[in-house]
Amino acid sequence: MTARHTSSEASGRVITEADIDEIAVGATVLGTGGGGDPHVGALIAKRLIRLHGDVPMLAVDDLSDDDFVVPIGGIGAPSVGVERIQSESELLLALQAIERATGRTPTAVMPIEVGGGNSMVPIATAAIAGLPIVDGDAMGRAFPEAQMVTFHLAGHGPGATVLVDHHGNEIVMRPVDGAWSERLARAATVEMGGGATMIDYAYGGDVVRDCAIPETLTLAKRIGGILGGRGAGGGELRDDQKIAALCDELDAVRLFDGKVVDLQRAVEGGFTRGAAELDGVGVDRGSSFRLDFQNEMLLARRDGELAAVTPDLVAVLDLATGMPITTEALRYGARVSIIAMPCHEKWRTPIGLETAGPAHFGYDVDWVPVEDLAKARAATEAEAGSAGGSSARARKEAA
Amino acid sequence: MTARHTSSEASGRVITEADIDEIAVGATVLGTGGGGDPHVGALIAKRLIRLHGDVPMLAVDDLSDDDFVVPIGGIGAPSVGVERIQSESELLLALQAIERATGRTPTAVMPIEVGGGNSMVPIATAAIAGLPIVDGDAMGRAFPEAQMVTFHLAGHGPGATVLVDHHGNEIVMRPVDGAWSERLARAATVEMGGGATMIDYAYGGDVVRDCAIPETLTLAKRIGGILGGRGAGGGELRDDQKIAALCDELDAVRLFDGKVVDLQRAVEGGFTRGAAELDGVGVDRGSSFRLDFQNEMLLARRDGELAAVTPDLVAVLDLATGMPITTEALRYGARVSIIAMPCHEKWRTPIGLETAGPAHFGYDVDWVPVEDLAKARAATEAEAGSAGGSSARARKEAA
Repeated sequence: MTARHTSSEASGRVITEADIDEIAVGATVLGTGGGGDPHVGALIAKRLIRLHGDVPMLAVDDLSDDDFVVPIGGIGAPSVGVERIQSESELLLALQAIERATGRTPTAVMPIEVGGGNSMVPIATAAIAGLPIVDGDAMGRAFPEAQMVTFHLAGHGPGATVLVDHHGNEIVMRPVDGAWSERLARAATVEMGGGATMIDYAYGGDVVRDCAIPETLTLAKRIGGILGGRGAGGGELRDDQKIAALCDELDAVRLFDGKVVDLQRAVEGGFTRGAAELDGVGVDRGSSFRLDFQNEMLLARRDGELAAVTPDLVAVLDLATGMPITTEALRYGARVSIIAMPCHEKWRTPIGLETAGPAHFGYDVDWVPVEDLAKARAATEAEAGSAGGSSARARKEAA
Repeated sequence: MTARHTSSEASGRVITEADIDEIAVGATVLGTGGGGDPHVGALIAKRLIRLHGDVPMLAVDDLSDDDFVVPIGGIGAPSVGVERIQSESELLLALQAIERATGRTPTAVMPIEVGGGNSMVPIATAAIAGLPIVDGDAMGRAFPEAQMVTFHLAGHGPGATVLVDHHGNEIVMRPVDGAWSERLARAATVEMGGGATMIDYAYGGDVVRDCAIPETLTLAKRIGGILGGRGAGGGELRDDQKIAALCDELDAVRLFDGKVVDLQRAVEGGFTRGAAELDGVGVDRGSSFRLDFQNEMLLARRDGELAAVTPDLVAVLDLATGMPITTEALRYGARVSIIAMPCHEKWRTPIGLETAGPAHFGYDVDWVPVEDLAKARAATEAEAGSAGGSSARARKEAA
């Protein structure tokens, strides 16, 4: 850790090389299938922390009005991102471009979203630039489009928006609104080869205090800890206990255990788009499940009935180990468990649902809170159960 | 004329409202089918000169090293440009963006190409901003792609590159080279609706003195004068004398008189692409002709034989009036005369031909100077003539 970050040194919270894998895994769960592949990003972040020192972490509430906070991440199809390595010079070029465009020197970076790759990019950037990172993000999850951020929900535009690529091309856009930012940035990203580094919604500490969803890096690390086997009481979790422990920690619903029997997936328009069909295993044998995704998992249906709808979070976990699987990494025959959890309350407002609800993605369904869908299904099952059927609830007790 | 332009006031050369139509028509001839539709641009330029005063014109050689010269024009498919009106605020936003991006205040504007629309955009901009315009451009004609400029041939990159649209979106790119500039700008232009205002290759007076093709606005005005009926000796030209007078003035070859019998044209990838087939009329009856275009006319073939090849200039003129017809305005059944002339010598170098020769556009033909192709055909015809056939040369004498 350098001597530059006195406030965060005082708080004593830093991200070390040893934290990276847990954060990456946890952020991948919150990334709901998108937000970038964690593998390459984690390697880069660890290397840069080794080279440049630990990264100080600032609580959202600790930001001062004078801070200039720069959200930085990757944009593009995860199918491209998994093979794309953001170089140090690409990250530094992005920081230089935002400073030149705004005349303000960044004092902190932050993740624009919590996702496997996009939690790592700002950590790597912070390490190189000797800046602290904000413990929070602008989605509380990952979303596929650039305007799907809490800044947008609060009426803040994207401002000076930077895109850089590994060729050294630099673009600074000043789009009139978030929708134009997404549209122009996506087109540029496609030309840049399907992946680029992006800075948008760079704001002062006052705006970030209002808008950021706090403590999401800390939450990611806690999730990564559970999936790494760290139990609540300090004990070690067996692999077959992890998904249940995670659902307890996150107030998540375990929607379905099954194996992938059909998978359509294509890179188009700068996104990875597709759908997966699953047949149930274990307590879910005899049922089927469908997941629709655009980078992120957006819609989950069990036997044709809605089980979870964007902006609520849907994560696909390896059935044996609990480790998260991105939409890009999903494979035919994979045995998975699908969990869902409520999104942050900012997304459950009219503007939140307009921005990232099912209609925006062209799904002709109404959003219903995932916990209500779960309650309705539990009630139906209880009825069936009292009539002699089996109940999926048995799974929880068995775990 | 305002009091701001002392050097050009001294030279006394200005563009007045009365010059606009002649420049627009002449630039459309040099635009070889592209470079934008002159109609709307001429209306805007005339209105702005009425409002803000005449536009001082600077000779390329009069530029000082301290000048900061900003080429400004429209980018996109002419099919879109014909219906798109660039507002004053759009032009001013572009100027502000280049000043903010470079920290240099523009002292003059210039056309990036001579084309119907793209000669008018810089005149309109000069009028609003109270700046002089350079009598020269970076192509000596119009070309479809952004890197097809004499700056590029001399090894100069696009530098800070501005795109703005009528929504108010602003993009400043710093592409690593001219090819990337074209690629990124084209993608952004498509998103912006197929047309945008662009500034690129903004350089100091020293570079522009080296690179610009001089006196192309003056040439355009002279061409427009001839097509307006002004003869060499001050006499008035009849419509049926104009094309011959123009060919004399430009050292152009009259390739073919015919009518359009087939036309394929589509807006794709930010270009207007297509081909026209013609059947001969008059002295060319019995022959056929084919034109291939991508915004500009690129390849001309008579009875399957090459007649003119990019970067040489091919212009399509109305057979009755001599007025130029853009690729967008070309219609089935139109009776036209096709003329061709040598491009500027800068395009006849290895780098010039690599940049804008037939191979770049995917045509599997070698470039041959248009005057050599004409000589070869004249020789063949003379042979056929001495054997009793008719000669197209008869047309020249008849005119």
